[in-house]
Amino acid sequence: MALADAFDALPDPATLADALYVGNQSELYEHQIMQGTLLAEWAGLRNVPAERVEGCAAAGALALRHAVKDVRNGEHEGVLACGVEKMTAGGTGGATDALSAAFDRALEQRSGVTAPSQYAMLAQRYLHESDATERDLARIAVKNHRNAASNPRAQFQKEVAIETVLESEPVAAPLKLFDCAPVGDGAAVVLVTTAELAAELELPMVRVAGSGAAANNIAVAERDLTEIEGAAVASGTAYEEAGMQPADMDIAEVHDAFTVSEALLAEALGFAPAGLGYQSGLAQADRADGWTDIEMSTSGGLKARGHPIGATGLLQVIEAYEQLTGQAGDRAVPDATSAMLLNEGGVADAVTVAHVITTEASV
Amino acid sequence: MALADAFDALPDPATLADALYVGNQSELYEHQIMQGTLLAEWAGLRNVPAERVEGCAAAGALALRHAVKDVRNGEHEGVLACGVEKMTAGGTGGATDALSAAFDRALEQRSGVTAPSQYAMLAQRYLHESDATERDLARIAVKNHRNAASNPRAQFQKEVAIETVLESEPVAAPLKLFDCAPVGDGAAVVLVTTAELAAELELPMVRVAGSGAAANNIAVAERDLTEIEGAAVASGTAYEEAGMQPADMDIAEVHDAFTVSEALLAEALGFAPAGLGYQSGLAQADRADGWTDIEMSTSGGLKARGHPIGATGLLQVIEAYEQLTGQAGDRAVPDATSAMLLNEGGVADAVTVAHVITTEASV
Repeated sequence: MALADAFDALPDPATLADALYVGNQSELYEHQIMQGTLLAEWAGLRNVPAERVEGCAAAGALALRHAVKDVRNGEHEGVLACGVEKMTAGGTGGATDALSAAFDRALEQRSGVTAPSQYAMLAQRYLHESDATERDLARIAVKNHRNAASNPRAQFQKEVAIETVLESEPVAAPLKLFDCAPVGDGAAVVLVTTAELAAELELPMVRVAGSGAAANNIAVAERDLTEIEGAAVASGTAYEEAGMQPADMDIAEVHDAFTVSEALLAEALGFAPAGLGYQSGLAQADRADGWTDIEMSTSGGLKARGHPIGATGLLQVIEAYEQLTGQAGDRAVPDATSAMLLNEGGVADAVTVAHVITTEASV
Repeated sequence: MALADAFDALPDPATLADALYVGNQSELYEHQIMQGTLLAEWAGLRNVPAERVEGCAAAGALALRHAVKDVRNGEHEGVLACGVEKMTAGGTGGATDALSAAFDRALEQRSGVTAPSQYAMLAQRYLHESDATERDLARIAVKNHRNAASNPRAQFQKEVAIETVLESEPVAAPLKLFDCAPVGDGAAVVLVTTAELAAELELPMVRVAGSGAAANNIAVAERDLTEIEGAAVASGTAYEEAGMQPADMDIAEVHDAFTVSEALLAEALGFAPAGLGYQSGLAQADRADGWTDIEMSTSGGLKARGHPIGATGLLQVIEAYEQLTGQAGDRAVPDATSAMLLNEGGVADAVTVAHVITTEASV
């Protein structure tokens, strides 16, 4: 049964959940706040706790994290974790303007910094410190487009040649157009519930085994450009809660807003030795010793599946759900049982939320 | 010791808290999102969970609610609940424009509805259904200004005559300028911690005994205009958790964004019989039978203490803290031990968050 049909077959959301969180980056697009109440109303929920959470592009995973905490702590039996963004709505100044609200207004925004220009600094530094080349980063884009080609939910369901990436328009050197995730619209919703209620739904289920969050600081000038510290902390908490290690992960959906992010996160999350994360664009057999057996961004990632900001963290959950329950079609990673999901807001780890999702039994 | 001095005497926030929530209504004022990370950085916290929560004007109480849940559930020993709004920053269209983002973009905003115009409908209906007069509503403004006159933190530290209120400029009939809370800037922070750590600080402490939240729906057209259902549900949860009743409350800080709100909330929160909430502007001795012994908006309320949107819910906590710990000076309610705090977002109860705060021992 396709996922959409499975959702159609679900009972009314109002009978499954009695609380709601929604991740949304900004009312600068649509002039709309209060999505908590708005979505609760649409879902048929009334007079239940419902609110919006925001941490720029990590908003979706923050919504998931609250839903998981509430169910774990017995506050609710079912919680809807939602994410939504309509980046093409235009709003006050388009996507680049809205995203720049994530930088410090007093100290950074007026200098004209943008997300690409700051990630470009990370990329420059990474190319300087490691053996990585622009071609290595391009391979990550090629791999993610290949994955997206077989993902019916991807924004770009097509492969790209490495020369297309390398010859694409410069955005902020060394990042070119095909190093960058696109602007787009999207929404996602995940039901978090108890094992007991999940069993009653008679659908394949996965377990959120660990959750971690960490806010580093806003300005990249105050950080080591190639050490994604917050991601290491947040994923460390998630691994610890799950009783699992990086080597136990079969797949990872990470925050590849720019190709360099996937390389840096491969290292921060414990999949690649320091300085070798750029090899995530290679087949596993071609990577250096010390890499775990991991497939990253099987959905196509932010790069090719798309990056509708507030929805991204929950689109990662949906990819993990499909992969771990045998519903990933041509892009399936055989026998995958555990996934690391890493969602960030701001440039790299200004805020990071990490989850371990698994079909394995509780330790 | 004045509260400001007490705060100055506190240890570094980074030694007291390891998580942070911040309520903020909108980046339409300041073009700034990600206040979670920003404030964590300023507080010296790094790589801890920090995020923004939003439910329009209920954002501050949502931040408190998350802090309370985290401490209760053993997730953190100390959490900072912050709220901030700089409404005078101008932004894309000023405060009326930013606040209108709380209404449904697809169905309501284009009709030109504003907060005052919708609260005016509630007021018209209330004057029609009850014995209340415009003079009764004006008395609520007079009372709240009187309270603010002795609150050094109030935006308007001055009394107003009832004729001043009644003769003030019409905003949306029957609401006049002095029926409406002002636009203003403000910030507040509350430390939520365990009883053990609180004792170590050697400051007077209060206990959050109950917390409730409820999202009703956005459009007032879909609600009973004078029955603030979400407030009844959210306060009901908070009373139940606290093991207390409306009659146990000595003071209440409520969401008097407009005078009529205080009247309607007096009824929804169980302090006044149906249709008699407008008497909150009268001295207790002059109110009808069936009223509890309650003093509402002792800080001056949103009307006169001020209503810097994201901060309001936490300014309510600070008033309760000062009242219940004998630090309220000339506006002190003698022997007050318990407070109901009611913070709303959108028009009336589009989203409502209620807390019971007390110095009484746990039941």
